[in-house]
Amino acid sequence: MTTSMDLGVLALLKAYSAGTLTPEQVIHEVYDRIEDYEDPAVWISLTPRYDALARAQKVSPDLPLNGIPFALKDNIDALGHDTTAACPDYAYRPDEDAFVVKRLIEAGAILIGKTNMDQFATGLVGTRSPHGAARCVFDKDYISGGSSSGSAVAVAAGLVSFSLGTDTAGSGRVPAAFNNIVGIKPSRGLLSTRGVVPACRSLDCVTVFAGSCADGDAVRRVAEDFDAQDSWSRPMTPRALADQPTLGILAPEDRDFCGDNEAAQLYAQAIERAKSLGWTIREFTYKPFKEVALLLYCGPWVAERKSAIGAFIEANPSACDPTVAKIVTGGVDLDAVAAFEGLYKLKDLTRTCEREWALVDALLLPTAPTQYKVEDVNTDPIALNANLGLYTNFVNLLDLAAVAVPAGFRNSNALPFGVTLIAPAFTDSALAELGDALHRALGSNVGKTHHRVPPAPPIARNAEEGLVDLAVVGAHLTGMPLNHQLTSLGAKLIRTTRTAKDYRLYALKGTTPPKPGLSRDPGFEGKGLEVEVWRLTREAFGTFTQNVPPPLAIGSLELKNGSWAKGFVCEGYAITQGEDITSLGGWRNYIKHDVPPKC
Amino acid sequence: MTTSMDLGVLALLKAYSAGTLTPEQVIHEVYDRIEDYEDPAVWISLTPRYDALARAQKVSPDLPLNGIPFALKDNIDALGHDTTAACPDYAYRPDEDAFVVKRLIEAGAILIGKTNMDQFATGLVGTRSPHGAARCVFDKDYISGGSSSGSAVAVAAGLVSFSLGTDTAGSGRVPAAFNNIVGIKPSRGLLSTRGVVPACRSLDCVTVFAGSCADGDAVRRVAEDFDAQDSWSRPMTPRALADQPTLGILAPEDRDFCGDNEAAQLYAQAIERAKSLGWTIREFTYKPFKEVALLLYCGPWVAERKSAIGAFIEANPSACDPTVAKIVTGGVDLDAVAAFEGLYKLKDLTRTCEREWALVDALLLPTAPTQYKVEDVNTDPIALNANLGLYTNFVNLLDLAAVAVPAGFRNSNALPFGVTLIAPAFTDSALAELGDALHRALGSNVGKTHHRVPPAPPIARNAEEGLVDLAVVGAHLTGMPLNHQLTSLGAKLIRTTRTAKDYRLYALKGTTPPKPGLSRDPGFEGKGLEVEVWRLTREAFGTFTQNVPPPLAIGSLELKNGSWAKGFVCEGYAITQGEDITSLGGWRNYIKHDVPPKC
Repeated sequence: MTTSMDLGVLALLKAYSAGTLTPEQVIHEVYDRIEDYEDPAVWISLTPRYDALARAQKVSPDLPLNGIPFALKDNIDALGHDTTAACPDYAYRPDEDAFVVKRLIEAGAILIGKTNMDQFATGLVGTRSPHGAARCVFDKDYISGGSSSGSAVAVAAGLVSFSLGTDTAGSGRVPAAFNNIVGIKPSRGLLSTRGVVPACRSLDCVTVFAGSCADGDAVRRVAEDFDAQDSWSRPMTPRALADQPTLGILAPEDRDFCGDNEAAQLYAQAIERAKSLGWTIREFTYKPFKEVALLLYCGPWVAERKSAIGAFIEANPSACDPTVAKIVTGGVDLDAVAAFEGLYKLKDLTRTCEREWALVDALLLPTAPTQYKVEDVNTDPIALNANLGLYTNFVNLLDLAAVAVPAGFRNSNALPFGVTLIAPAFTDSALAELGDALHRALGSNVGKTHHRVPPAPPIARNAEEGLVDLAVVGAHLTGMPLNHQLTSLGAKLIRTTRTAKDYRLYALKGTTPPKPGLSRDPGFEGKGLEVEVWRLTREAFGTFTQNVPPPLAIGSLELKNGSWAKGFVCEGYAITQGEDITSLGGWRNYIKHDVPPKC
Repeated sequence: MTTSMDLGVLALLKAYSAGTLTPEQVIHEVYDRIEDYEDPAVWISLTPRYDALARAQKVSPDLPLNGIPFALKDNIDALGHDTTAACPDYAYRPDEDAFVVKRLIEAGAILIGKTNMDQFATGLVGTRSPHGAARCVFDKDYISGGSSSGSAVAVAAGLVSFSLGTDTAGSGRVPAAFNNIVGIKPSRGLLSTRGVVPACRSLDCVTVFAGSCADGDAVRRVAEDFDAQDSWSRPMTPRALADQPTLGILAPEDRDFCGDNEAAQLYAQAIERAKSLGWTIREFTYKPFKEVALLLYCGPWVAERKSAIGAFIEANPSACDPTVAKIVTGGVDLDAVAAFEGLYKLKDLTRTCEREWALVDALLLPTAPTQYKVEDVNTDPIALNANLGLYTNFVNLLDLAAVAVPAGFRNSNALPFGVTLIAPAFTDSALAELGDALHRALGSNVGKTHHRVPPAPPIARNAEEGLVDLAVVGAHLTGMPLNHQLTSLGAKLIRTTRTAKDYRLYALKGTTPPKPGLSRDPGFEGKGLEVEVWRLTREAFGTFTQNVPPPLAIGSLELKNGSWAKGFVCEGYAITQGEDITSLGGWRNYIKHDVPPKC
């Protein structure tokens, strides 16, 4: 076992590309590590080493995940493996890969095995399995978190490069926090749930565990595609977030860590680190989010679990974990009226929560308030489980995306703590970028491995994401009369900078409100003009451009650092008639000087 | 009573503007007509004539609906009127106008009264009311249709200019068909339902009855606004439809008119007329839509009605129409599991229906299969009512917009027939334009009035509708190397024309493929340059603009006829370096002359 081999997705791709490793070497390493790993409760079934090696030998270096070993939660179908959802009597042998698995395998990834989980994905603890509880990689007395317990441990222990989990209440995030890795919880419907055993069909998400946000996001992008055969699938319509976001944090009175003072301190520390990244912090009103969280188990959604597996459990009571059976079949005596009234309540709370979204870009919350011992969970399985979902249960009900990242360790017991960034649906890519920055500010090693959190990946994703960066130079600057045209379209200010040196600025004649015209003068050596770069969707950009009046137009601007953005240019005839104000360095200075526009 | 006074919304605004009528004259006329009208079951309460006159005297000619008289279904709140939902014991006096009513009144519209309806909006017949059945304007033996019975009759009889109804199963469309008027059923959430007595909260829509689609659409636009206090409100994100659409029609085996052969002939005639407009007709697979329609009363959604008024009905059984009471409180023994399973079934059927939407722009369906006598409905109130919803019940469940238009008269009994255009949510404006064209092709007079269906309104809605007209002048022209950038974005060529006289064209240096730059030269008297105007969505326009390289930019071009389009302009420095080819009249001639670009 080579502890120095870094199984990170991007690290492996780089090593393959450099020729320093081959997929066969990696597959051998993976199986050696699995054989050596002390916890017997991580896997439910393994791909034979020989089969994985055979896959590894069919090298296609052009594929995005070629030769990358991964683990799969055992409620997701894969050819050659039973799907059991951690209930042996429920097992069936699928005749095709789940949609997401098919995409990963077609991209060159190599399935190593199926992982243990809370039975039927009902739990956040990882103890509700006939295969035993997968343990926290840092301390075997402690739970790994669930329900995607084995998938999280497999990554944190350095057994595979990434894994897939599922997440209804928090199953793709809580175990990430408890094992010092990243959990990517995509927006609902981005990763097809076809070929996944349902928990709550309307909420279930397939998730990615990885060592870094960059790794996890790369996998998410491969797994993601619209699946016309999954009624819950939705095409990606990406939304931006500010590069320097405003994060909503819990007010002191909302901070509940179930008595875990070190967790409270680590949360406070994460907030400070976020500030040190230049991000803005603001307390938000947590109450409506908490009320949504309570709906998940106290509202009608439990009926979805009954719909999914209630008949099986009733027919096979002894085959099931008693706690799972109790949750799924007990207590659901709600009628259809109550079901709709639950939906109404969610609709109202969603609207209330929107007020908070108007004030913050994302939430920064503890992933879980605390971490429990296996023994304690066995003694009090329902109440302690409920505590773990305090900050996760609302996310899928409110149609949000989330990225859970490591956030340091408790001194007393050396157990990891995690925080989660949460933002509206379809911000997945932007959220992963923020998560990556936060992870590097907060984290040290990946999982229990000796590998450091990798450096920031290059970011050049706007065009791919359907986003446009637009440089504004005049009446659209912050505080100027037309700035609302940007903000009302959902544009976000991402930075303030200057143009390249060879631009001149003119105060145009007869414009209302007063506007400048920017004009390139090749060879001119000025200081550049102040611009703000705003990011918006293509549709918003189209709307904005449609409303730009002559003589202004939207062209391409070269910025100080040599990069380009879309931006305001001006027809030549109007420049000729304008007043050269280049020496002022920008429109703000001209306005400040109170020079009246010439009409 | 002046039968010659046309109360159409746009007709009245025109008459006010021309000074040929005053709002006071119209209000007197309206009240005179109401007093003379023979059917006592149209209104539940009237605004006193004196109060309406006082409103009419406060003239603000700038308001979009100034002095326009309207009626309101009695399940929508208005100050000064009880809201009864046609159940006197349910009556309450609202302390504010419903959101949509407030918008109409602020726009200058004058509320004349509250109209009769199927109690609690539960019915498509118009007979389920303690105030009696409002009758079809053409034959008092026949039902007016419901539940918005009085609102439809008030418009069809020429008593008001427009009215508001509500529509869950078809209540804003069926009575339009039975009374030879237009019923606009907006996309869910566009017209706030705050201040409306709910039927099925998740489906309820406020609707508009009017004499023409142009009238109805004008009212819809005024009433429409995002209402943050209504959890079901959604902002408009307009979607275009082709000007020459492909319409889905029923295959012969799906055409069920409950034995009404004349209705079947009128539907076939409507299809022929649509063809004569140059539209494409294609049979679609109706089965999944029909299955959705069945869900409305056989699935869990009846529980929404119970949630809304079940407690009132159970507490006041004698206060309610027995059929309504039976539907709302009887038969709902579904549990929450069944409720979610109904939602799952809808989700699956929605996906199945999407396959049809990939093939057609809109559906062209009968609004209702046939029309019944009041007597027959009284004898068999539930089964005949169910027949009427055959082609309407699926629309709100599938999140569609609909416009019901008149489609001629049966020869045997002189009763009107109607068809409905149905398309995905947010196509409302485009659908109204198509409906307007179809109405003029099919209809004769408005309602039972002597006024003809008005001529086509001027259409200049692109900016409002999310479409952009883009003038291209060089490599994007038809047949040129970059034309695919337009066609691959779904752009449509709408005309070939020239710029205004004062533009010059330059062959730019060093562009690949060769490109021209257009530059305005105020005062120059040229012949204008050849341009093609392409129409595309804002998102496509945003994508296109994002990909325009410097020195080109997208600004505004004045065309030969004085209109403007978005179009290519060029940064001044590049023009200075280019070759003036203005005299060739356009890029095509330059390329044709095979003049190599200078590099």
